Amino acid sequence: MNILVLSAGTRDKVVRYFKETLKGKGNVIATDCSNLAPAIYDADKAYIVPRIDAPDYIDKVIDICKKEKIDGVFSLIDPELSLIAKERARFEEVGTTPIVSSYDLCEMSLDKYAMYKFLTEKGISTGKCYIDKDSFYKAKAAGEITYPVFVKPRLGSASLNINMVNTDEEIDTLFDIYDDLMIQEYMKGQEYGADIYIDMVSGKCVSIFLKKKIKMRAGETDKSVSVKDPELFDKLAQFAEDCGYRGMIDADLFLDDGKWYLSEINPRFGGGYPHAYECGVNFPKLVINNLEGKENAPAIGDYKEGIYMMKYNDLLILPESELV
Amino acid sequence: MNILVLSAGTRDKVVRYFKETLKGKGNVIATDCSNLAPAIYDADKAYIVPRIDAPDYIDKVIDICKKEKIDGVFSLIDPELSLIAKERARFEEVGTTPIVSSYDLCEMSLDKYAMYKFLTEKGISTGKCYIDKDSFYKAKAAGEITYPVFVKPRLGSASLNINMVNTDEEIDTLFDIYDDLMIQEYMKGQEYGADIYIDMVSGKCVSIFLKKKIKMRAGETDKSVSVKDPELFDKLAQFAEDCGYRGMIDADLFLDDGKWYLSEINPRFGGGYPHAYECGVNFPKLVINNLEGKENAPAIGDYKEGIYMMKYNDLLILPESELV
Repeated sequence: MNILVLSAGTRDKVVRYFKETLKGKGNVIATDCSNLAPAIYDADKAYIVPRIDAPDYIDKVIDICKKEKIDGVFSLIDPELSLIAKERARFEEVGTTPIVSSYDLCEMSLDKYAMYKFLTEKGISTGKCYIDKDSFYKAKAAGEITYPVFVKPRLGSASLNINMVNTDEEIDTLFDIYDDLMIQEYMKGQEYGADIYIDMVSGKCVSIFLKKKIKMRAGETDKSVSVKDPELFDKLAQFAEDCGYRGMIDADLFLDDGKWYLSEINPRFGGGYPHAYECGVNFPKLVINNLEGKENAPAIGDYKEGIYMMKYNDLLILPESELV
Repeated sequence: MNILVLSAGTRDKVVRYFKETLKGKGNVIATDCSNLAPAIYDADKAYIVPRIDAPDYIDKVIDICKKEKIDGVFSLIDPELSLIAKERARFEEVGTTPIVSSYDLCEMSLDKYAMYKFLTEKGISTGKCYIDKDSFYKAKAAGEITYPVFVKPRLGSASLNINMVNTDEEIDTLFDIYDDLMIQEYMKGQEYGADIYIDMVSGKCVSIFLKKKIKMRAGETDKSVSVKDPELFDKLAQFAEDCGYRGMIDADLFLDDGKWYLSEINPRFGGGYPHAYECGVNFPKLVINNLEGKENAPAIGDYKEGIYMMKYNDLLILPESELV
């Protein structure tokens, strides 16, 4: 049983967890386009690959799958999810299972406005979102949204040009000077995160780990505490199964005034997954079982509450001569 | 020899480095206002204290110094530096040395516009900075600055409301809708960082570690490589001694077209200090020597070049019952 972790980056823990779970009964191979990605040094073997937008990228990855007899492959970065989902047939041809949801689900999950429309159509509560200011003003006049709101580039990823806005004047001026903006509701509730696993054999949601995020500084979630909510578990499991997600996904949620809002789905290992693993919620084991053709038994909420996680920096030091 | 680390936060490595260096010949005590600061769990003993702006904050810290027979105290967060510098006499009264520069130097170092004026007066190259748009337009007309520039709140710390701006129209509209903005030159060169130690006994600069920052994503320095530049070392040592800095400081630099620019001084352990320590540049040892009344011999550039540092996340997991 060999696992390939694509775009491993700084996700050292995910690589280690697969190694721990495989206990030597197979290799964990990791790739990155940079030889300064610390997680590749935690793998049994590392490959430096082209950037994911290079024309020969998928060929190189398929070559690695063949050469290393890879059973399952997954990526840790958003822009690569659709890519490996799209090439499912080519991976399967060489005996490798892509551990990822369908292409359409990946594409939609990463487009915040598309996701907003999808959730709204399904009747699932989510933060409001507008891409033209007129519909925002109409909604505001109708009392559906109030200031402050976030104004940000629809497709931006860095934290540049994100403005918290309180007046029409600011909205007008920002829309005058920038293109492709999006207005997002400022969610006032308590933020939560859920690590969810949908069995790749049965299609059933078999594991959910819920954590309350504890923010100490703006924008940074470096602490969380494990909690449970059986009613939410039911809703999340139903939603994940209805949509047809597969493997590990990460959900961002808000609880405001007793009501749950689903704000985002990342169809991959979330950045906070290590909290779940350290509480005994072992997704690598579920992945390996599925790759062996075994269905996992449901074990939703199978962990202790009140377990705190606090992130801090560790570092890898390597002389130039030891870089891949 | 007992050391007190204030506002330890997530700086687990700094706490561990003092413990390693003391080798049991004294205790490392750490404080934070939160019992979810992972670094306090690395100390020999932890105290939860009020927030630094609480009226009784300094009294509580002085009490800890007395009770734990603290020889030296330092803080890891900017807003506390001036505070402990200001209360130097009270600390010394109980036998504790604040490991920090003077109050005036701390205050100036943390005000980016004040620092800009100071560096310019001293003839040291630095990124240009404007707090009114008319002087920015004059400078632009005179060819002293070109777009893009950063427009940000003068006193902001989070990454909210930071805009990269390319036109007069954007400048005008941003200044119309927001108060207390600052226009900063966008530095195009390669970014470097220097960890500098100015001996508290002799006032001489005795250690400098220079690293080239390797940015993979916007705004994030999670990789660096050790380098040397004897000419820059001389300039930095001279500057640090002239200004009268004491103890450990952190400098942000740019190298553009063969010319060095000093962009910022943080008069405390920099976030990237672990790279220096792992290369043998042991500031805790220099601190301890100084607290013992010993002068440190100059050892500027005493490390290997080409040593890479890559950050990744580690985590502390604790059940509620084991929190301080």
